[in-house]
Amino acid sequence: MREDVNEKCAVVGIFGHEEASRLAYFSLHALQHRGQEAAGISASDGEKLRIIKKRGLVMQVFDEDALSTLRGSSAIGHTRYSTAGDDSILDAQPVFARYDLGEMAIAHNGNLTNAEEVRGRLIKKGAIFQTFMDTENLIHLIAKSEEDKLTPRIIDAVQKIEGAFSLVFLSRTKMFAMRDRFGFRPLSLGRLSNGGYIVASETCAFDLVGAEFVRDIEPGELLIFKEGREPKSIKIFEPTPKHCIFEYVYFARPDSLVFGQSVYQTRKNMGKELSKIKPVDADLVVPVPDGGVPSAIGYAQESGIPYEMGIMRNHYIGRTFIEPTQEMRDLKVKMKLSPMTDIIRGKRVVVVDDSIVRGTTSRRIIRMLKEAGASEVHMRVSSPPTTDPCYYGVDTPDKDKLIAANMTQDEICEYIEADSLAFLDEDSLLRSVNTKEDNYCTACFTGNYIV
Amino acid sequence: MREDVNEKCAVVGIFGHEEASRLAYFSLHALQHRGQEAAGISASDGEKLRIIKKRGLVMQVFDEDALSTLRGSSAIGHTRYSTAGDDSILDAQPVFARYDLGEMAIAHNGNLTNAEEVRGRLIKKGAIFQTFMDTENLIHLIAKSEEDKLTPRIIDAVQKIEGAFSLVFLSRTKMFAMRDRFGFRPLSLGRLSNGGYIVASETCAFDLVGAEFVRDIEPGELLIFKEGREPKSIKIFEPTPKHCIFEYVYFARPDSLVFGQSVYQTRKNMGKELSKIKPVDADLVVPVPDGGVPSAIGYAQESGIPYEMGIMRNHYIGRTFIEPTQEMRDLKVKMKLSPMTDIIRGKRVVVVDDSIVRGTTSRRIIRMLKEAGASEVHMRVSSPPTTDPCYYGVDTPDKDKLIAANMTQDEICEYIEADSLAFLDEDSLLRSVNTKEDNYCTACFTGNYIV
Amino acid sequence: MREDVNEKCAVVGIFGHEEASRLAYFSLHALQHRGQEAAGISASDGEKLRIIKKRGLVMQVFDEDALSTLRGSSAIGHTRYSTAGDDSILDAQPVFARYDLGEMAIAHNGNLTNAEEVRGRLIKKGAIFQTFMDTENLIHLIAKSEEDKLTPRIIDAVQKIEGAFSLVFLSRTKMFAMRDRFGFRPLSLGRLSNGGYIVASETCAFDLVGAEFVRDIEPGELLIFKEGREPKSIKIFEPTPKHCIFEYVYFARPDSLVFGQSVYQTRKNMGKELSKIKPVDADLVVPVPDGGVPSAIGYAQESGIPYEMGIMRNHYIGRTFIEPTQEMRDLKVKMKLSPMTDIIRGKRVVVVDDSIVRGTTSRRIIRMLKEAGASEVHMRVSSPPTTDPCYYGVDTPDKDKLIAANMTQDEICEYIEADSLAFLDEDSLLRSVNTKEDNYCTACFTGNYIV
Amino acid sequence: MREDVNEKCAVVGIFGHEEASRLAYFSLHALQHRGQEAAGISASDGEKLRIIKKRGLVMQVFDEDALSTLRGSSAIGHTRYSTAGDDSILDAQPVFARYDLGEMAIAHNGNLTNAEEVRGRLIKKGAIFQTFMDTENLIHLIAKSEEDKLTPRIIDAVQKIEGAFSLVFLSRTKMFAMRDRFGFRPLSLGRLSNGGYIVASETCAFDLVGAEFVRDIEPGELLIFKEGREPKSIKIFEPTPKHCIFEYVYFARPDSLVFGQSVYQTRKNMGKELSKIKPVDADLVVPVPDGGVPSAIGYAQESGIPYEMGIMRNHYIGRTFIEPTQEMRDLKVKMKLSPMTDIIRGKRVVVVDDSIVRGTTSRRIIRMLKEAGASEVHMRVSSPPTTDPCYYGVDTPDKDKLIAANMTQDEICEYIEADSLAFLDEDSLLRSVNTKEDNYCTACFTGNYIV
Repeated sequence: MREDVNEKCAVVGIFGHEEASRLAYFSLHALQHRGQEAAGISASDGEKLRIIKKRGLVMQVFDEDALSTLRGSSAIGHTRYSTAGDDSILDAQPVFARYDLGEMAIAHNGNLTNAEEVRGRLIKKGAIFQTFMDTENLIHLIAKSEEDKLTPRIIDAVQKIEGAFSLVFLSRTKMFAMRDRFGFRPLSLGRLSNGGYIVASETCAFDLVGAEFVRDIEPGELLIFKEGREPKSIKIFEPTPKHCIFEYVYFARPDSLVFGQSVYQTRKNMGKELSKIKPVDADLVVPVPDGGVPSAIGYAQESGIPYEMGIMRNHYIGRTFIEPTQEMRDLKVKMKLSPMTDIIRGKRVVVVDDSIVRGTTSRRIIRMLKEAGASEVHMRVSSPPTTDPCYYGVDTPDKDKLIAANMTQDEICEYIEADSLAFLDEDSLLRSVNTKEDNYCTACFTGNYIV
Repeated sequence: MREDVNEKCAVVGIFGHEEASRLAYFSLHALQHRGQEAAGISASDGEKLRIIKKRGLVMQVFDEDALSTLRGSSAIGHTRYSTAGDDSILDAQPVFARYDLGEMAIAHNGNLTNAEEVRGRLIKKGAIFQTFMDTENLIHLIAKSEEDKLTPRIIDAVQKIEGAFSLVFLSRTKMFAMRDRFGFRPLSLGRLSNGGYIVASETCAFDLVGAEFVRDIEPGELLIFKEGREPKSIKIFEPTPKHCIFEYVYFARPDSLVFGQSVYQTRKNMGKELSKIKPVDADLVVPVPDGGVPSAIGYAQESGIPYEMGIMRNHYIGRTFIEPTQEMRDLKVKMKLSPMTDIIRGKRVVVVDDSIVRGTTSRRIIRMLKEAGASEVHMRVSSPPTTDPCYYGVDTPDKDKLIAANMTQDEICEYIEADSLAFLDEDSLLRSVNTKEDNYCTACFTGNYIV
Repeated sequence: MREDVNEKCAVVGIFGHEEASRLAYFSLHALQHRGQEAAGISASDGEKLRIIKKRGLVMQVFDEDALSTLRGSSAIGHTRYSTAGDDSILDAQPVFARYDLGEMAIAHNGNLTNAEEVRGRLIKKGAIFQTFMDTENLIHLIAKSEEDKLTPRIIDAVQKIEGAFSLVFLSRTKMFAMRDRFGFRPLSLGRLSNGGYIVASETCAFDLVGAEFVRDIEPGELLIFKEGREPKSIKIFEPTPKHCIFEYVYFARPDSLVFGQSVYQTRKNMGKELSKIKPVDADLVVPVPDGGVPSAIGYAQESGIPYEMGIMRNHYIGRTFIEPTQEMRDLKVKMKLSPMTDIIRGKRVVVVDDSIVRGTTSRRIIRMLKEAGASEVHMRVSSPPTTDPCYYGVDTPDKDKLIAANMTQDEICEYIEADSLAFLDEDSLLRSVNTKEDNYCTACFTGNYIV
Repeated sequence: MREDVNEKCAVVGIFGHEEASRLAYFSLHALQHRGQEAAGISASDGEKLRIIKKRGLVMQVFDEDALSTLRGSSAIGHTRYSTAGDDSILDAQPVFARYDLGEMAIAHNGNLTNAEEVRGRLIKKGAIFQTFMDTENLIHLIAKSEEDKLTPRIIDAVQKIEGAFSLVFLSRTKMFAMRDRFGFRPLSLGRLSNGGYIVASETCAFDLVGAEFVRDIEPGELLIFKEGREPKSIKIFEPTPKHCIFEYVYFARPDSLVFGQSVYQTRKNMGKELSKIKPVDADLVVPVPDGGVPSAIGYAQESGIPYEMGIMRNHYIGRTFIEPTQEMRDLKVKMKLSPMTDIIRGKRVVVVDDSIVRGTTSRRIIRMLKEAGASEVHMRVSSPPTTDPCYYGVDTPDKDKLIAANMTQDEICEYIEADSLAFLDEDSLLRSVNTKEDNYCTACFTGNYIV
């Protein structure tokens, strides 16, 4: 039930399939959870790139006519999360450009940490920027590179940018996929049943279109797809993996493999670890749906306390413009989540959520459970306190809005009106994701920013 | 994941609150799962009834303007499930009519078994029917009754109809709530925090607007609301309860009390019973979301086999008009449900669903789990085989489409490609709903129709 | 530029053409000027009536799917003007009903003067009214008639209603067309090129679908269409023609024949008469578009004063929700009409409009012309002062809003800020429509109501 | 009734009015006839530029919220005609860019003849083009100019482009208006009632917002608006006027002053000239509405033949997706234009239209008049034969589609089935627009392209 931390995007690329844009469409649908504001696909038929992008869910943006227009055997796509205003369509992706080598389109998931600086340099040299997207930097860098072929230019360009980027590029005859040296954001390679290829932010896209997982694009790797040969891999940077641990905590779909591991399994592990280190004597384990479900299952399995769907989520939620009156003050959270009163009443409840960001939702949930008759409510969070904003492609509130940056755990416990509160510590979190080395970015919990 | 059996409607009534239509709106939103095709509210300000009804979800049909128009301290509302075509708006409710005593509006959940016959008689006497709804019978009967006051007319009218009906009526100054003698469909009474009243198909509407559950409207009871006095109860029929057991199996929201019991708890009981009578040696218990979740939890608790969210449901589903190509044949079910491959692989899985109607969805789910690597898939169904259509307010396929009416359990097991298949038997089901007497209609499992 | 007097509806019927609903669609489009709020078509394939009706323009309400649904070789249609609120769809036509003889649909143009009384009687006998349309009376009367066949029932029913009605009825196998004894509203018969028939409110519908004008349905005539024979005519009432003269003045499309005469020609005649009886020494004759165009042409031809399009109409007008600021006060009329300044400047202008209802639009137009530099503005109105509301199917303001009911001509002239003002008198108007006898209803100019 | 020749755009600029975007909105509405596909406004509050642009009519694109967002006392706007596909929003204007001097927005009416060449040079230097609009060239040229202030840069940039351009530029604190040396497209300056300024493609925008016409922006003139001083004029190019004569023939609104003269008056003059040089013995002069109205009035006044609205235009036309059947073949033109049969029958008709492009519409109209009973139809065209496409901002068919480029006048006469056909010759046309010198571009009639 996060409304305050959002993945910024998802990307997909299809190469070597006569229905490329159709497969991109279904893949984007599977990735819809990573961005609901706008969607776009660009396809190439070998001679010309075409692009359609609009505000709306994937299913709203495309229809048969649109897909028929997007002819060709290669395509890239993008879904976008956005906080921008009415004109945000200007910032939808892929970004298309004509330049000296022809036409290209780029879709980008991530955030460049030196975007302002690069843009400043480019602008000084006479470049114009028509959008507010980091992606525009890249097409400028490629267009202005002094190399005379596209591949060296891309290599040239990505060496000038820093930060988090999982990218797909489309030219008339090739497709490229690239990940930054840290591999912040996920990007995986799959093989289509006809022998073509798919790259996507998460493997749940593969499952939908019947593709087989091959491997992740490596941190620092550029993968080049050209007709009639195997994808060619170039190691642009020495990989120094710093995968975003929040993908495991909240973003990725539980049925995806991310950074080589099952998201569902790592979430269950977090719940188990949490139970080991923060046990509590209680009658029920209840998840905050949908995010807290796997860790609550893990918590319950490890602790032996029965698991119950004690909170129900209403999926008919859309935007309501009707203001609840004063009398119905807590209505908004209740329209989304409602307590299973009969299950809760008189019980000591462990509530498991994936994270606490502002604390306001947690407070409303706990209050709701107490009103439903819970005798005790123990909050268990399957990640450490979120103390620092993300600069690598996640939309987080400012630090002064992050409750854990401004209160001690005791104060938070009191604020959210819980009988006890415990977070998973960083070590246990890393243990949950089954890693021996220090391969993860945990900056949002530690403030240790890599770049 | 039922697409083949649908509750036909929900009703709500608000009496004695200056924001009556607003409360009706929020209540209908809580009841949205009972009908997504159309919604309507009629309100009275003591002098005039106003009505707004349209196709669409509750949140789409009403805005501030609409609610402002619907002035007054009493209101009734309706959400509708419908299979009808483009003109189905003609069949939205409430039904409004001017007649000799003034104006009235009626909202109806259920199905009249003698509707054709009553309509035939009325038509013979010169009545005209402008819709295809049973509800139109009732307003005719009230309008044509020879009694000279509304209450006796309603009593007169409901004595001429048979079948399932949970009704709310609105006149300029009164509201009425009524249930058939069998109490097929639920209808509960609640008290608003300001002293006013609410009646609704399910108590989840009470929770949302902050009302307190008082009691169910009794089978055969007519409840009359008039300003300045307590609701007056008239026993029209001797109650012979035959509550729809499918409300427990599938329809009602798990956080509702229905027929006096927690829906979630009864579903868990079904899962427990199922585990007792149909045990299986397995590694995981996996629900078909969302319907199978509570019974799967019960099954897991009773059997000690770990519970896992082995199947994920995608909530971004809308209508797609884009056809998957031949190559992507099983796409449609995969767009809604996807397997947690990592959890499933190599495991013996117990899949728990609430019911089997046509069998086609079960087959696709089992096939999907096997493709995801499940070594065995055991289907457990928390209700008996659905062998007979419902005539009491539920939209079911014809008998020749009901797999259990046409195949033995062994044949079904083979058809859905399960390693084993077991249903809950009727006795165990009744035990799950905690009843000692024969208070339930189980016609859809037995063919024993009451009327 | 009338916004204050509106025709309430148009009707059309098609019989004996395999594309009946398609022809009804195109015909309704030609009749769109008579009602823009809602549209509907009901078609019969000999076994079943189907109906689609919705809010919106004809082109918005129907698409290929809708027309395919409306199968069969007979169809009736309706466009509606309406001032009603959000729920006005309830009042769209045709009205459909099931009754003891099967199914019927009715579309009605007009206004019943004894509607309240008939409704009262019907309600006393137990009838219910679900809409606010007069048409509902008729279906009740037909359904309740003691005759046992449809034709005698229709005859029975129409004898019980009074006022203005041009009707089309559809049963499974027949179509009926009927006009009240006064023939207030127009209704014409045409022959389709395949031998089938069309009836429509105006002949412009015939021209569009390539039908040939046969004759008007006579006042008091019922015309019955049945497959395999010529339409059968029954004289229900002795005809006493009182055709609505305002059809000539403003409503009907200039390219229609109405009551047997060319609308354009009669309007030109009005302009000529006006010039004869109310000459003025001026430089230009300028119409208020589009209504004043034919009479201005007539005025110019008769007077020899040059005709100029001195006022331009902007056709991109829709609803704007953006309020002009104080500074831009007269913006609203300017968004629709703008002066041809170069033509107007320094000239003595005769402005010709079809009628003056409230006077506010005339005032704004004259002010606009003066601001554009006209040295004199002489208002000439091609109809008498509108002093009385219509009860025969036209939506007019109340009497206290009609400027001519509340001011003398001199006062009006002063109010609208004209240098002179003249109306066509009743005798000249009747001369313009070329009639020797007293065949027209002029109640809106005289207050002489026939019924 | 041109569907085959289209003005590509309109521009507007408002400077020094606190409701700048609101005035831009109303102005664009007045200019809607120059482009119906998309609309946009960019406004500056002195610190930041904001922009909203979308597909749709002006009234559909903007609402109160949008205008509130577009804060500030300066604003530029654009309406666009477009033939592009679903993604054409990418090509809406104004174009916004961040560059080394800050932010700018540009709106452009016209067509650059060296756009490909300039783009080629820019691309070679590393520029990227994200749209298909010529306008993008300009922002690149400004951004890359080596001058260090905006004004010299604009001067620098416009010296590198050739062709037709009427431009408005917006920076944070200034507004610029510029016309190419030939003054192909119109652009006028007006003064707002509060002392602020407006520039617009046509003066009809001034009339709507209550501004006073000051003068045209001169060919080759750059006008700079800055707060607190009078607009500063810089003559960038020696003016060599070649105004687009087709603005008079068809594009401009008749109530506009264009190139210093009344459009309505010049059109009337064309009709008069036509009557002088191509007289015909006939009974009626009938315009093809709306384009042919003023010249038909001129023709009638000169010849003494009565003017009649013999063809009616239906303004309810939108897009219909419903196909007329074979039997109703000529339906499409009839849905827009219908003959006044009663006026036409047996008459010798002079039909006046503004131009003939493909000839197909003329043929349908003449056929329609003959079917309506005209004994003779004489086509008179108030411009010379259109033989050559436009490269200066007008969307025309290719030369092989222009009937006059491929047939003699006799052949055209036969093709359109007229009894006689005559065009206005070039000399008479120039006489109509009242010019002594050779100030007009008549390339579409002569093939004499200036640049």
